[in-house]
Amino acid sequence: MVNAEVIAIGDELLIGQVINTNAAWIGQRLSMIGIKNDFVSTVGDQKQHILSALQLAAQRSQIIFITGGLGPTKDDITKAVLCEYFQVGMRSDEEVLANITRIFKFRGRTLTDLNTMQAQVPVNCKVIPNEKGTAPGMWFEFEGRIYISMPGVPYEMKDMMEKTILPDLAEKYSEGCIQHQTLHTVGIPESFLAAKLHDFENQLPGNISLAYLPEAGMVRLRLSGFGNDKDALTQKMQEQLFALKNIAGKYIYSDQGESLEEVIGNLLRSQQASLSLAESCTGGYLAHLMTSVSGSSDYFMGGLITYSNASKINWLGVSEENITKFGAVSEEVVLEMAKAAKEKFGTTYALSVSGIAGPNGGSQEKPVGTVWIAIATPKGTRAEKFQFSEDRKLNIRLAAITALDVLRHEILPYITINEP
Amino acid sequence: MVNAEVIAIGDELLIGQVINTNAAWIGQRLSMIGIKNDFVSTVGDQKQHILSALQLAAQRSQIIFITGGLGPTKDDITKAVLCEYFQVGMRSDEEVLANITRIFKFRGRTLTDLNTMQAQVPVNCKVIPNEKGTAPGMWFEFEGRIYISMPGVPYEMKDMMEKTILPDLAEKYSEGCIQHQTLHTVGIPESFLAAKLHDFENQLPGNISLAYLPEAGMVRLRLSGFGNDKDALTQKMQEQLFALKNIAGKYIYSDQGESLEEVIGNLLRSQQASLSLAESCTGGYLAHLMTSVSGSSDYFMGGLITYSNASKINWLGVSEENITKFGAVSEEVVLEMAKAAKEKFGTTYALSVSGIAGPNGGSQEKPVGTVWIAIATPKGTRAEKFQFSEDRKLNIRLAAITALDVLRHEILPYITINEP
Repeated sequence: MVNAEVIAIGDELLIGQVINTNAAWIGQRLSMIGIKNDFVSTVGDQKQHILSALQLAAQRSQIIFITGGLGPTKDDITKAVLCEYFQVGMRSDEEVLANITRIFKFRGRTLTDLNTMQAQVPVNCKVIPNEKGTAPGMWFEFEGRIYISMPGVPYEMKDMMEKTILPDLAEKYSEGCIQHQTLHTVGIPESFLAAKLHDFENQLPGNISLAYLPEAGMVRLRLSGFGNDKDALTQKMQEQLFALKNIAGKYIYSDQGESLEEVIGNLLRSQQASLSLAESCTGGYLAHLMTSVSGSSDYFMGGLITYSNASKINWLGVSEENITKFGAVSEEVVLEMAKAAKEKFGTTYALSVSGIAGPNGGSQEKPVGTVWIAIATPKGTRAEKFQFSEDRKLNIRLAAITALDVLRHEILPYITINEP
Repeated sequence: MVNAEVIAIGDELLIGQVINTNAAWIGQRLSMIGIKNDFVSTVGDQKQHILSALQLAAQRSQIIFITGGLGPTKDDITKAVLCEYFQVGMRSDEEVLANITRIFKFRGRTLTDLNTMQAQVPVNCKVIPNEKGTAPGMWFEFEGRIYISMPGVPYEMKDMMEKTILPDLAEKYSEGCIQHQTLHTVGIPESFLAAKLHDFENQLPGNISLAYLPEAGMVRLRLSGFGNDKDALTQKMQEQLFALKNIAGKYIYSDQGESLEEVIGNLLRSQQASLSLAESCTGGYLAHLMTSVSGSSDYFMGGLITYSNASKINWLGVSEENITKFGAVSEEVVLEMAKAAKEKFGTTYALSVSGIAGPNGGSQEKPVGTVWIAIATPKGTRAEKFQFSEDRKLNIRLAAITALDVLRHEILPYITINEP
């Protein structure tokens, strides 16, 4: 199987001002066309380090992706270093210049000298068009290796990958014999899943492996299989996936890579149901998750962020007495919030969340991380208390995910698993 | 200056199921104590690749951080590989076992065999306590190099870095001669900033460099200086920073690394002012940004997410006639939304946003990316129209940032820059 490597260039990645999301994205897309990403190397904007990384990559990888260092500014040296590595000079590319001119015209702006200089490319490259920006992509073939240089700006890189590079690579290396299947679970910690899956793991054939990918409140289970016979591998993978689904059962919310909010959106749409929200400690994050899904206006009617007691009383009619007696973070208050949202938005379901996100506001009785979640349904309203962490951002995330999971269990009380 | 390298281990990083945020965070913290992060290498869960990465790192880096592969599950092999690399065996560590037992007791759960096995460590390591999880950190000194192995779970890794590793390293290598200063700008594209800064860049001394770090709607300008005399370097950096601030002027929202939402929070708090929101296309994301800041309940009263026309009419009293005549994405409607939010929440300011996030819902007259933003202030209400991109998530982000920037200019009409 063909293997690949990503070299990411930029001091900003090393000193942590920018997170290298490109490498993950490239790795994901490569595995979809049967190319194995074996290494990611990040180096700074220094000629010697970039050259060493290229030399090392040439020894161990067949396809070498290079991201970054193609901008119009002085710190961008990738093209000059590539010229040195390949021992070639530069030429000005007319189509690249035309693209730069087109983009500036569209934006109603005048070209600067820095921008026209972006049309310079090493003479031995094939230009990869960049429809989203001014820096061209470049494809090199050199001593039996393919080198692909792309801008570091994620949406520019992704656009040229999708439109040009991935189709070209897929055509060249189409015997794909790597397969991944991922199940997304929510509501069970990694070590408990691992204990449940102990026997399953022991019976796995040598060419199939299981990985656990925990993240806040969720664990992804990834089955990876390698083999030469694609059909046989597919068959084996399906069998193992079926067994895995039977064990992980109700904790699985997706086997197709959708997010929890997409799964819920699809469930709501299929039932012609609608949702509204009343958020306190999640502060709009729950609504943001729901509305990040395209088409969510079909089922999401809106929400209230009642961050103050006054807004809970004025907008949702929460009783002042309950707030005084039980506190804003209480079963009584979240129940009132969910009921009012359902009624006033006229939706099938409503979720409400009130908690102590922290770092301040905790007490002995209600420490930071205490969160009440209520759901209003056509059958009634109920609430549940959760204890999350000491970290504000994690609590916001966990509260929102847990609220969505409460809704998921409400609208999909059981999961059917079909034999392969 | 001492240099470092990060080796991140995990197939999930290579096939892109997890983004390597750890490397960025480590690089950032190291540069704060004067250690230069020169390389990040990502390799899969394969013994040979991990061993090669360790050998390469030993040739070029003095401190080697290793993240990942310490979990309780089968795919975690880092400890076994380290034993092979250092040619040592394992021992069971009592304190680690006590920590694992404590964590499980606190969570009200029973230990599994997999968990007790996490107390095994290579005999030559000094254990680094992990207060947040079960996998211990490990510190090795070997042939003049320091190797530090940590769990891949970000909050566990960060906790042991902050509490143990960074203080220890800072004490060992405290001559810090690397300095970074970053200005955060919003509202001007990278190439326009670069044109403005052309002369400034040309006059920079050889040991100070400028980097541009663009991200959605924002550009960070980073000055980096290297030198042996810390005081002289500080002096020079301050002079250049002053010059840079004068040129970038009103586009700068922070020179201390705060987020735009933190800057706005501090401005609101210092003026004893309050904010409410009425969001349509941003769907709660603007509220989420505001409430992700600890203490935001001091100035943020709440918001309404009116995702349907009915909710705009019912909750905010937007006139049905205006919606019919001008559409939900119009100057008339956002003005009504902002006015109603300000009045009903009783806040000093209110922001409203209505637009076409996409990918559907665009028209010739109002293409995807059309967004109206209004602000209600004690002096009145005004609205402005923006044209963003074709990408839904980017549009949500750009609309929210732009709305915050509208508010920033309202409450801070000019910026004072003090000479160093």
